[in-house]
Amino acid sequence: FAVEVVNNYICRPTIYFNMNNQKLSSLAETLVSSEIVRLGATIKEKIKAGEEIYNYTIGDFDSSVFRIPQLLEQYITEAYKDGYTTYPAAAGESALRKAVANFITSRSEIEVSEEEVLISAGGRPLIYAAYRILVDKGDKVIYPIPSWNNNHYVNFSGAEHITIQSSRENNFMPTAAQIAPHIKDATLLALCSPLNPTGTVFTKEALEEICDLVLEENKRRGPEEKKLFVLYDQIYWMLTYGGTEHHSPITVRPAMKEYTIYVDGISKVFAATGVRVGWALGPQYIIDKMKSLNSHMGSWAPMAEQIAVANFLNNSEAVDEYLVSFKKDIANRLEAFYNGFIDLKKAGYSVDAITPQAAMYLTVQLNLVGKKNQEGKKLETQADVTAYILDDAKIALVPFSSFGAESDSSWYRLSVGTCKEEDIDVVLAQLTASLGRLQ
Amino acid sequence: FAVEVVNNYICRPTIYFNMNNQKLSSLAETLVSSEIVRLGATIKEKIKAGEEIYNYTIGDFDSSVFRIPQLLEQYITEAYKDGYTTYPAAAGESALRKAVANFITSRSEIEVSEEEVLISAGGRPLIYAAYRILVDKGDKVIYPIPSWNNNHYVNFSGAEHITIQSSRENNFMPTAAQIAPHIKDATLLALCSPLNPTGTVFTKEALEEICDLVLEENKRRGPEEKKLFVLYDQIYWMLTYGGTEHHSPITVRPAMKEYTIYVDGISKVFAATGVRVGWALGPQYIIDKMKSLNSHMGSWAPMAEQIAVANFLNNSEAVDEYLVSFKKDIANRLEAFYNGFIDLKKAGYSVDAITPQAAMYLTVQLNLVGKKNQEGKKLETQADVTAYILDDAKIALVPFSSFGAESDSSWYRLSVGTCKEEDIDVVLAQLTASLGRLQ
Repeated sequence: FAVEVVNNYICRPTIYFNMNNQKLSSLAETLVSSEIVRLGATIKEKIKAGEEIYNYTIGDFDSSVFRIPQLLEQYITEAYKDGYTTYPAAAGESALRKAVANFITSRSEIEVSEEEVLISAGGRPLIYAAYRILVDKGDKVIYPIPSWNNNHYVNFSGAEHITIQSSRENNFMPTAAQIAPHIKDATLLALCSPLNPTGTVFTKEALEEICDLVLEENKRRGPEEKKLFVLYDQIYWMLTYGGTEHHSPITVRPAMKEYTIYVDGISKVFAATGVRVGWALGPQYIIDKMKSLNSHMGSWAPMAEQIAVANFLNNSEAVDEYLVSFKKDIANRLEAFYNGFIDLKKAGYSVDAITPQAAMYLTVQLNLVGKKNQEGKKLETQADVTAYILDDAKIALVPFSSFGAESDSSWYRLSVGTCKEEDIDVVLAQLTASLGRLQ
Repeated sequence: FAVEVVNNYICRPTIYFNMNNQKLSSLAETLVSSEIVRLGATIKEKIKAGEEIYNYTIGDFDSSVFRIPQLLEQYITEAYKDGYTTYPAAAGESALRKAVANFITSRSEIEVSEEEVLISAGGRPLIYAAYRILVDKGDKVIYPIPSWNNNHYVNFSGAEHITIQSSRENNFMPTAAQIAPHIKDATLLALCSPLNPTGTVFTKEALEEICDLVLEENKRRGPEEKKLFVLYDQIYWMLTYGGTEHHSPITVRPAMKEYTIYVDGISKVFAATGVRVGWALGPQYIIDKMKSLNSHMGSWAPMAEQIAVANFLNNSEAVDEYLVSFKKDIANRLEAFYNGFIDLKKAGYSVDAITPQAAMYLTVQLNLVGKKNQEGKKLETQADVTAYILDDAKIALVPFSSFGAESDSSWYRLSVGTCKEEDIDVVLAQLTASLGRLQ
């Protein structure tokens, strides 16, 4: 394909819509667009075409329903007024690192110093940096399925995927027994609790068993061998409901402090995904390395927001006040959907749901392959089921296959972050009707 | 080194200050802390100890001197009030991509569509992403010395460094004649104009010659070969002074559109380094790949700031009004220092300066190795000169060696972004006195 060459620079070049796609790096060739993104595009088209879709696919919030804390917003405005507009310190502003250390130390059983905290633009840069700092090409990384995006991070690292298929019996959390056979040569164990996409958590005992495995394995390894580290994504840890308790490697096994990197931040707990403030906790020499990489990636949280988040975290009363009402609003939605699904199950429909424990996710099941719709067309695959629920009930959910599960998995993530409370009855009624139309 | 194991999770683990430094990834081992950072630490200590240091080392602004545009600040506050607090689109909010495309199309000879724009948290993530998308391990990357941080990005990529030593005769810009011998196998040519650290620019003719080389080379390469791309960092392009004109690959050779990725943003032009909004311009298929990588890196610009920057860029009058006064304030400082150095040169001191053209940097020379201070101690190395000027004149500058030049280079970057106008006479007087004390 020949490209028009115009040598007179006054003449504006045309936009080369049919530009040759040149060969790029091997990394570029491995970048696959995610299923979630493709699903999102379909939903967008439907909405554009005027359909009312109840879009519960997004791990985010509708800010007309869930606002960031009013005081945090005020602090951001004030920080801008005070001229906090220049480069933040590479590891994050000291005020914020201190505030995070105090916040974690006072609210969990982990004692953290400022030097063990790294600030970045949300949690993702920290996951990316941890992978790059710990994992070499060819190394083995263990992660559960379903889980969020570990497959991509392992791809980037050129590492070997060791996936643990979790199951309903264990609330879709991986177990020590499943991990044990793979632990010998692994470099990284990537865990997340509360887990995206399931909204479920590790029990204390289950996590203890996993940590004991890691500690034992690291004792076995020689001084020249790389140790096994745990990347622990706990970005949803403050969003637990009912009697659910959050546990983490250091709280159940303090010796894990040497081998654990936590990823955390304000994105979910304060409905602030767009504010871009996250933090990692870990051994100082690792935090320093992640800081260096992050400096070159430039994934810094904006300056004014850093100062504002520091002020907000230091205001324990305001944090608690926000969390009480925020958590109640999420829990109510999760419970309403859960009860709705269980009622449908009791009524004989092939659906199910897992008791909500944490985050803003409900795990639901649509076991409908083989059924026929009103035109007599059979739902041949789980993708047909996903499409039927979207087209007929107008409900958009993310299948677990988008989180690495088999394509025939009948489980889904339902996110309530974008759910208006008054919609729930409508949605359940539409679902009931759609299920009723299947034969 | 034995680590205390405490198995009761109620007991808080101690902070392991003497924690073993375990083996990490090979990338982690190659991460070197930059000389600039070490220099910064020395300066910080001096300031902490009560010394008044005129710190002109930072490629940033003092916000008490250079504020971001008042209207931009107002738009950010409004965007927060309007609930712009959730995830931005992966490629950046459409409103901002459109605004950037219009801004670039209306203010330069480059026509850009929304799809050719990628938004990120400042310019760095885009440089990082471009390297990773274009460059494979073992590929050759050509970049000039001095220049900012290309050495680090080439390290990350596992690529081969092909460095071009620029010189005073060419205003410290690399030339086609210097690049030509290395072009045959190169994958990337990393250029920056206006250049950090020199504050100098490519002439139209010099850039034309380089682009012709690239176009010719790409014509020579077979369809299966990777093409030679140009990464063009033009983040300072609107900050030109006097008769200086900014040129870029597409404006001098439209056919370069197929092979050029621009890095740009608001960080410098609106004194907004901490606001974290940058953009890349490039062929859509490359922008798409960079977007995918950036999504996993999470290096997204904060949501409210994206909306606010879109509104501000669309307000041409406000942009112009800000730029007129901002550029005048920077130009005055650059000129005052330039004149001061030239006066000292005329007075017989071994100093020099390059006529300021752009950015907020002045290139100055301190040719003082071999001189003796008042205690009779000889300045043996350029590092001794840097230390003498810092200790005696209280002026902190970055030696070009921190930008990859030889350690005996006598040239420095003087940044006026943190300079109070009333300090200039004091600084020049102190410099004169310090020079006078040398024998």
